[in-house]
Amino acid sequence: MALVDIQVILIQLFVLVLLAQVAAYLCGKARIPVVIGEILVGIAISNIFLNGSSLFSLLGFDQVASQIAFQLLATLGVIFLLFAVGLETPFSELKKVGKVATIVALVGVILPFIGGLLLMVFWGTSMIVSLFVAAALVATSVGVTARVIKDLGLMDTIEARVIIAAAVIDDILGLIVLAMVSGVAQGGAINLVEIAVVAGLAVGFVLLTMFISVIIPRARTSPQVTKFIEKRKPAKRMSLLPFALIVCFGLSALASYLNLAAIVGAFLAGMIFAEFRDIWNGAEKFEPINEFLVPFFFLYVGVQFNVAAFGTASIIILTILLTIVAIITKFAGCAIGAKSLGARSATIVGVGMIPRGEVGITVAFIGFTTGVLTADLYATIIAMALITTLIAPWLLFHTFKQKNKPRLKKMKTQKEF
Amino acid sequence: MALVDIQVILIQLFVLVLLAQVAAYLCGKARIPVVIGEILVGIAISNIFLNGSSLFSLLGFDQVASQIAFQLLATLGVIFLLFAVGLETPFSELKKVGKVATIVALVGVILPFIGGLLLMVFWGTSMIVSLFVAAALVATSVGVTARVIKDLGLMDTIEARVIIAAAVIDDILGLIVLAMVSGVAQGGAINLVEIAVVAGLAVGFVLLTMFISVIIPRARTSPQVTKFIEKRKPAKRMSLLPFALIVCFGLSALASYLNLAAIVGAFLAGMIFAEFRDIWNGAEKFEPINEFLVPFFFLYVGVQFNVAAFGTASIIILTILLTIVAIITKFAGCAIGAKSLGARSATIVGVGMIPRGEVGITVAFIGFTTGVLTADLYATIIAMALITTLIAPWLLFHTFKQKNKPRLKKMKTQKEF
Repeated sequence: MALVDIQVILIQLFVLVLLAQVAAYLCGKARIPVVIGEILVGIAISNIFLNGSSLFSLLGFDQVASQIAFQLLATLGVIFLLFAVGLETPFSELKKVGKVATIVALVGVILPFIGGLLLMVFWGTSMIVSLFVAAALVATSVGVTARVIKDLGLMDTIEARVIIAAAVIDDILGLIVLAMVSGVAQGGAINLVEIAVVAGLAVGFVLLTMFISVIIPRARTSPQVTKFIEKRKPAKRMSLLPFALIVCFGLSALASYLNLAAIVGAFLAGMIFAEFRDIWNGAEKFEPINEFLVPFFFLYVGVQFNVAAFGTASIIILTILLTIVAIITKFAGCAIGAKSLGARSATIVGVGMIPRGEVGITVAFIGFTTGVLTADLYATIIAMALITTLIAPWLLFHTFKQKNKPRLKKMKTQKEF
Repeated sequence: MALVDIQVILIQLFVLVLLAQVAAYLCGKARIPVVIGEILVGIAISNIFLNGSSLFSLLGFDQVASQIAFQLLATLGVIFLLFAVGLETPFSELKKVGKVATIVALVGVILPFIGGLLLMVFWGTSMIVSLFVAAALVATSVGVTARVIKDLGLMDTIEARVIIAAAVIDDILGLIVLAMVSGVAQGGAINLVEIAVVAGLAVGFVLLTMFISVIIPRARTSPQVTKFIEKRKPAKRMSLLPFALIVCFGLSALASYLNLAAIVGAFLAGMIFAEFRDIWNGAEKFEPINEFLVPFFFLYVGVQFNVAAFGTASIIILTILLTIVAIITKFAGCAIGAKSLGARSATIVGVGMIPRGEVGITVAFIGFTTGVLTADLYATIIAMALITTLIAPWLLFHTFKQKNKPRLKKMKTQKEF
């Protein structure tokens, strides 16, 4: 009954939405992506100290109920964000970029892994530790990129499609790499059968939901289904929103259960509902929900960052080196993979794949809790993930803007109140 | 970082939205209000046992993180519900019913208080305990009524306005009664100054936000403001949704801080934004958010109900008597108060004020935690609150339908997909 002190949570929600809005306003003035402002607000909350207490604890965010509430809203935010991205990505469009996206994902996984491994071996860490750090460099976190592209209204561009498709494939590859590395860390040997099962289930899940997206349009136009829909009175037809929520949570949970990122399931769920665009405007329905929830995710990403963890010069240097390797190898790998699209588009794809975000953090977390990674290395990886997440929107914003100037200009004047 | 097991929470969300949708479908078939189905699903979750464990614990809802998550979503649901009700209640309309609503609230507080007090004294409990139980009978919880009226699309009827206005006044009166009773329970004597301060702050808060609702339309039409709005390019004007969230959370927190129900603040916040209807369609924006969140509140109300608490005949009899007194005194009091509207409208108002819900439960909770009420009496009050909440929608649905048949028929055929 009284687990949650409603009064405290309401004040915290008030502060968070207020700060997010102030950040959005300032970012608008400074012409930088809103998401950067939200992350910076998050960093400020957990790193500004008054009389020895951080704003985070002064506002009561360190209470268990508040931490859980914040994390829940952040999780819902990123899940609905990827669902909305899926809504704007019909399978037919995704199929067109399948080949390029696969190459982008493959090269964009191999280069960072090798780069990370070499850096860590040169730095002098053991092979197992080096493998884990390298694995954390692999998977792209598509949340930040999706948000920037959505804010710019450019989700239907070829670059956006390639980035989204590559990020899904990339997540599966990242899972395989993590399974291999964990195998080495735990047993010393790689269990190929286990890895094949893990990878097979993940691939099967993605292919199955994609298959559903393919058959829906065919089933919808079949005479029987048309007849069935027409027979029902408009008043009896229900809103599709509850069904969208059911499928979204169901597939997200399933993806998470198969060790994929939950957001991959949310994206695939959105893709299924993209096929109902003619009778249900899901994008419009989810917009207010996302306007409420998505900022919590980026505030939360910022809150994870602990400046105090970077006390020694050695950690700072390693963080800088690791971040540089993470950025250069991912950018180069993905741009090379997308070179068939032309230099400008390849640059956008390369930049869009840079952020690691929560996927890299999750790998680091597994490494940390299983005892492979030290607290210092854990902090280093989190910093790398955050810096890539912070840099990418800015780069993406400008590369995209350069290529789509006329369209963005037109859009801006049309924007409604 | 890993406070919340995302996988578990996602599965729980999946189950809850699925069950809520099944309930909605069945209620549609059976022509009963959806909200009853949601409450019954909640009761089922916490009272159906498999192999000695309730569904509630089998699904992992008894884990702290899940409990907090559920309660947070429920709280957000009822807050946004009342905000949306406020959006449909411009102050000018509320003012028209001010006199009737005040009488409804007054008589509807006095009768249940006397009725509850007499019953408990006859039952043989001490004066202090009797006073507390009587106080729990006082305040109407407007959530359920608001939901039924919203679902029927009849928020702009005179009866709806009277019920909403009376519920706000009623909450202030309930607060005064609770302050008095708590004073007696703690010190033995009533501290009049303290009660005056508590009541004065609450009244001041409500009057202040109402005053804001009055000056906004005047300020909006002043030449300076019109000039200021026109000067800004449409692209620079922001969406009002974040501001609505800021004001909603701010006033809810403030109401809660002044010991009023948080939903009173949310309602008043909605009323302020009702004045912007010409430039911002808040009702349309909040509809998807509410479609997602509101069912959690009613599921949560149901989950509170513990059948096992009613083991003895004495508790069952007292619960039945208390519930009958709660229903009859509230109905009679409010219907008498609204008799100037005519018999049919007075019946609707009387029925609409019956539910006690979370306000009654809160009073009982204070009584229980301060040691005044026994666990048995606490369970009795919760049952009374739930039964009134369960009965009211059904009665309201039918009395409203009888009066507004032609209009409801017209609406049903117009309802869009």
